[in-house]
Amino acid sequence: MKEVKVLAPATIANLVCGFDILGMAIKSPYDEMTLSLCDEPGIFIKHTDEYQLPEAAEKNVAGVSLQALMDDYKKPVGFNLTIHKNIKPGSGLGSSAASAAGAVVAANHILGNIFSKEDLVRFAMNGEKLAGGVKHADNVSPCIYGGVTLIRSIFPLDIIALNSPDLFVTIVHPQIEVRTSDSRQILRKEVQLKDAIKQWGNIGGLITGFMKNDCELIGRSLEDVIVEPVRSILIPGFDEVKLKCKNAGSLGGGISGSGPSIFMLSKEEETAYKVEETMKEIYEKIGVDYKTYVTQINQDGVKIVE
Amino acid sequence: MKEVKVLAPATIANLVCGFDILGMAIKSPYDEMTLSLCDEPGIFIKHTDEYQLPEAAEKNVAGVSLQALMDDYKKPVGFNLTIHKNIKPGSGLGSSAASAAGAVVAANHILGNIFSKEDLVRFAMNGEKLAGGVKHADNVSPCIYGGVTLIRSIFPLDIIALNSPDLFVTIVHPQIEVRTSDSRQILRKEVQLKDAIKQWGNIGGLITGFMKNDCELIGRSLEDVIVEPVRSILIPGFDEVKLKCKNAGSLGGGISGSGPSIFMLSKEEETAYKVEETMKEIYEKIGVDYKTYVTQINQDGVKIVE
Repeated sequence: MKEVKVLAPATIANLVCGFDILGMAIKSPYDEMTLSLCDEPGIFIKHTDEYQLPEAAEKNVAGVSLQALMDDYKKPVGFNLTIHKNIKPGSGLGSSAASAAGAVVAANHILGNIFSKEDLVRFAMNGEKLAGGVKHADNVSPCIYGGVTLIRSIFPLDIIALNSPDLFVTIVHPQIEVRTSDSRQILRKEVQLKDAIKQWGNIGGLITGFMKNDCELIGRSLEDVIVEPVRSILIPGFDEVKLKCKNAGSLGGGISGSGPSIFMLSKEEETAYKVEETMKEIYEKIGVDYKTYVTQINQDGVKIVE
Repeated sequence: MKEVKVLAPATIANLVCGFDILGMAIKSPYDEMTLSLCDEPGIFIKHTDEYQLPEAAEKNVAGVSLQALMDDYKKPVGFNLTIHKNIKPGSGLGSSAASAAGAVVAANHILGNIFSKEDLVRFAMNGEKLAGGVKHADNVSPCIYGGVTLIRSIFPLDIIALNSPDLFVTIVHPQIEVRTSDSRQILRKEVQLKDAIKQWGNIGGLITGFMKNDCELIGRSLEDVIVEPVRSILIPGFDEVKLKCKNAGSLGGGISGSGPSIFMLSKEEETAYKVEETMKEIYEKIGVDYKTYVTQINQDGVKIVE
């Protein structure tokens, strides 16, 4: 029986100034998924984790993504999918994207790699729509392509893989709930032109910093005058984390996706661990449960392991 | 007597989607300027062109830029400056920036290159303020640095030189008047967040295209959903020029600075001349006087020739 096991990594959408257009894959945490063909046409999903996610294909982000792939494939096919999530749903670390992207990468491998990466993103965006109501690609793209990706446009889909230095990433996930749909609704529908200009200056700086391996430029450009001032209100300790982690030597950082996780980038591993200590101290003091990760940019995306 | 002659090139600000943050120097047209030291402290300017610009230093963009440099230099000094402008004021091709940038680059050369390029941009921005009421750097930066520059931030000033392929540039300057201050005032102060997201996707694509030498990506990214729809109304024939020049093989283009000049980028010289023919046909038909240029990206900026 044909079977494949994949590891689908967490991702950081937006990267502070790049709301809806930038995303980055990281090495951990990651979900583990096993996909096999079965004789009966259809999608049969089993979760082995603790998150009580729906297993009916049409209610599961991996299920609807696989369905989109099967609709394109046109021949009848049956998939057994076992998902063990390590990326907590609602963390802001691309949990739904990992399920969606992992499933379609695994299926494509089993079917003989007939689809392009862009096709796979297109399929996986159906999972994002189910999870958050909006077909966005800033998590599924880096999850599938690896590294840092730019989504120039959604319709038509235009994904560009960017170079990036091998930065260290420290993450704190305060254990509070922020729903993506809520954190989208609190955004204003209009922005000041002068703020938009500041924002696109920073986006330009961030992308150039990645392409040129200019870490100081990356640091200077990690500034968001539009989304962060609104969304950070939902995250206790945010301003303190950002300020103190920068003082601890981090290049900069901000909200991961729509939060509540906060990520900080560092040039050196040692700094990344100092930043973790800083985060721990702050949430110990505030008295909010938290989880931290020290990891790196994942240049490969979903990994096929067996 | 110490004397220096410089050629100060025209520049294209905004580059379609990069309003206020991107600019590009081109090889022609350019202004010719001769600067020499004189015994009497002060700034003495003479224009040898036809444009009847004010020669009093405090009313001349080169004059106020030199004054800013002299204020930083602190020692008393006297400059004789002769300016022969070939870049018509009000063309949207960075005429004031060329005067301002050329003057400070020449002065810095005579004084022994004591100021950095960033300093020179800072001085030359005073000329831009005199000309258009706003201290912007998207013309003076490429004029001084050469090539394509990103202005990540004005306060504090943060200029990043980008790589770029040696593209051909075709320009048409319809001989109508559009004042920078007017074309700034017609812009809305608020923009839709969804439009801003489209715009920063394109800015990201354009910058990545330049850095990766990806001409097709440059072409796809030359789209402006915020400024062009408003400003292009002031330019007769704009939509037709853009459409027909793309059909003639151009990668794309748009308004140069605040107009009325329109620029189009091409990969091949032959295409650039086809684009010029297209522009000529359109303005002959419309019956508006015009001037065209076929040139290239200028990677060097202000050039010291003697």
